[in-house]
Amino acid sequence: MNAELQPRRIPTRLEALKRALDEGTMRQVHRLVNSMHPAEVASLLESLPQTQREVVWDLVDPEIEGDVLVELNEEVRAGLIREMEPEDIVAAAEGLEVDDLADLLRDLPENVNQQVLRSMDSQDRDRLNAVLGFEEDTAGGLMNTDTVSVRPDVTLETVLRYLRMRGEIPEKTDALFVVNRHDRYLGVLHLTRLLTEDPERTVGEVMDTDVSGIPPATPATEVASLFQDRDLVSAAVISTDAGRLLGRITIDDVVDVIRDEAEHSVMSMAGLDEDADMFAPVVPSARRRGVWLGINLVTAFLAAWVVGLFEATIQQIVALAVLMPIVASMGGVAATQTLTLIVRGLALGQVERANARWLLTKEIAVALLNGLAWATVVGLVSWLWFHQWRIALVIFAAMVVNLLAAALAGVTVPLALKRLGVDPAVAGGVIVTTVTDVIGFASLLGLGTRMLR
Amino acid sequence: MNAELQPRRIPTRLEALKRALDEGTMRQVHRLVNSMHPAEVASLLESLPQTQREVVWDLVDPEIEGDVLVELNEEVRAGLIREMEPEDIVAAAEGLEVDDLADLLRDLPENVNQQVLRSMDSQDRDRLNAVLGFEEDTAGGLMNTDTVSVRPDVTLETVLRYLRMRGEIPEKTDALFVVNRHDRYLGVLHLTRLLTEDPERTVGEVMDTDVSGIPPATPATEVASLFQDRDLVSAAVISTDAGRLLGRITIDDVVDVIRDEAEHSVMSMAGLDEDADMFAPVVPSARRRGVWLGINLVTAFLAAWVVGLFEATIQQIVALAVLMPIVASMGGVAATQTLTLIVRGLALGQVERANARWLLTKEIAVALLNGLAWATVVGLVSWLWFHQWRIALVIFAAMVVNLLAAALAGVTVPLALKRLGVDPAVAGGVIVTTVTDVIGFASLLGLGTRMLR
Repeated sequence: MNAELQPRRIPTRLEALKRALDEGTMRQVHRLVNSMHPAEVASLLESLPQTQREVVWDLVDPEIEGDVLVELNEEVRAGLIREMEPEDIVAAAEGLEVDDLADLLRDLPENVNQQVLRSMDSQDRDRLNAVLGFEEDTAGGLMNTDTVSVRPDVTLETVLRYLRMRGEIPEKTDALFVVNRHDRYLGVLHLTRLLTEDPERTVGEVMDTDVSGIPPATPATEVASLFQDRDLVSAAVISTDAGRLLGRITIDDVVDVIRDEAEHSVMSMAGLDEDADMFAPVVPSARRRGVWLGINLVTAFLAAWVVGLFEATIQQIVALAVLMPIVASMGGVAATQTLTLIVRGLALGQVERANARWLLTKEIAVALLNGLAWATVVGLVSWLWFHQWRIALVIFAAMVVNLLAAALAGVTVPLALKRLGVDPAVAGGVIVTTVTDVIGFASLLGLGTRMLR
Repeated sequence: MNAELQPRRIPTRLEALKRALDEGTMRQVHRLVNSMHPAEVASLLESLPQTQREVVWDLVDPEIEGDVLVELNEEVRAGLIREMEPEDIVAAAEGLEVDDLADLLRDLPENVNQQVLRSMDSQDRDRLNAVLGFEEDTAGGLMNTDTVSVRPDVTLETVLRYLRMRGEIPEKTDALFVVNRHDRYLGVLHLTRLLTEDPERTVGEVMDTDVSGIPPATPATEVASLFQDRDLVSAAVISTDAGRLLGRITIDDVVDVIRDEAEHSVMSMAGLDEDADMFAPVVPSARRRGVWLGINLVTAFLAAWVVGLFEATIQQIVALAVLMPIVASMGGVAATQTLTLIVRGLALGQVERANARWLLTKEIAVALLNGLAWATVVGLVSWLWFHQWRIALVIFAAMVVNLLAAALAGVTVPLALKRLGVDPAVAGGVIVTTVTDVIGFASLLGLGTRMLR
């Protein structure tokens, strides 16, 4: 058979890169890496262990280094920057957009930071400082200062002439901002309107005043909801007091917020940090994960202590020890389901005091139905297994009690955590499964002690 | 004290609405609802139990009904549509964008579907059928057919005149598509370039050929990565064979894909459906969640069966039953951490065969470090508790074994599931915790049987 006729898998970029690295053909690595878009290079770097990552990073063309750094996750970025010469960092920072540059500067050591700032002209430095003055996860921290603004009383004709003279409009501009002579934000002039309306009309006549400006202290997550609800491509950030135009936020940065938020909830439920480097060295990784295991250990000891209270019962009726995993596991799964629903509802702003009671009632009812159904199954199996109807009755009752506890904890714990200002996605899981472990064991072994001894 | 001086909480929209509903002041409900943006109305409807939801829905202005339906989650939407008269559905469908309309039609009963199609003019119907011909979660299903295209050999001046004559450009247009006379896609003409370049230049001279067209069968998740990597606002969908322009995808639809994908991974890890109605009636909710509990029950019986094999040991050494929850719980947490990391890496395209071995080695090393550390703690506490060094040794060994098993399962199970075409986010959790339960109990009780009896 001809070799060419056999189906061959096309090697992925990562495979091709690994092979080139293993074979030491650096020219090929260089060609591969620099044929990619900065975001793709960033993703590839994140997929490599540290030593290989540094080799590849050295081969990235200096012109795109800045763009790649911006796309990297925090820990990987910090690791690469640590190894870079200050001059190289300054060079990489050149040509970045102000919001991206601000993100990068927050990670840099203070002396390099000063060097970057000194290398900029005073206008750019002022712009950058305006962004750095706001928290990273607010509208102010997300914004760019490269706005193009026009007055409401000029004609579209004039705007068209002005733009042509200006010669350049920032990327992702879908609208110009309309301001009065005190730089106060009035509305937006969509480029599509500018291109289609009669040029004799004034900006004020065709501008859109529907979307108001965003105060700089607005949390990034609220900005993201606004962009999603209104299908925006860009929006103005305005000063809280005078409504002056400060900058603009574009959809690409909002997409990053949405993605980060989503990753945060997945990762934090397992006690992980979404900014962590998947290929971090063993010792720091172990330390970080160890913390979460330690917290869980405390709750596990609590459950064990409850079991320990009933040692005498277990010695007499070993069947109870056999059934322990079932009660605990079903309770944990049911609680996690309710918790996940509520945490998501809170994140979407769809769960609040006004409907929490209704939800609690519903979850209790669901738990009762499922509890009765599955407890019957478990009871029957236990009866067949141990030939004692009392044991079947005890596990039946313990399961119903534990599923009700699961529903109660699943609804109330996240609401309480939210009120206390604690992220329910992080702490919720540990707490509700501790509740179901403790209640599950206590009801199974407690009822067993009463009914079986 | 003056009542006005006391700090008062501003009622949320939901609270205000609930109060108006409870008091039966329907005019107020009407005013409240119709002062909101369609996406906000949709979110509010999703936050209400079914009966109240239907009352509020009846008060939504017919003009925005279509836009609200499009924003709703699938189950809530289907519920409202079921109660609507066919004529009202047809009216609501009017004025929707083609991609939104296609989404809606996929949910409608066949006879209403036909009625909507008949109500459209033939051009719109053809466009709609073009979109309906593709799967919902592909580039073809996401696209809109309202493209504006220009030829490469005309001047910008001509394009500007054409647009003014046309009088309207679809929303979120940031670029026109450049096609040859066979409608073959060549590149994009950004509006920003159109507005700033010399009008005497031709489209071909200033167009951007960097971003190639997207074939209609491309999965929506790949489209999302492309938009994120390249910071796109819109992109062309082109036919696979001739490269003909079929339509365009805009960032707002991509944002929905990104959010849905993120929700899917959070929800499916708890065996939940992200399209389900949080306020669905009790019985269907219980049935849906019951399935997941049932699957878990099978695995719980497996764990119980393992424990049952060692009944005689437990009867002699009850301390082992007391320590069972600790081994199982720590193993489950460690496995979930590794699993979550790998599932996310797979979703980001950062984990594949080329680096899986490296990750496995790393995870095993992390597990060994954490296993030794926490097993020592547990061993010491057990020794203090039960005053038997043999028991301390048994739990120490069982924990180290189980954390190693957790790392092994956490890496290999999602990779294997992915190869089998099963979503690792859905099935991974159940499988890895079953592994750690079984191995944890077997090693604890097995070692206990050998060393303690």
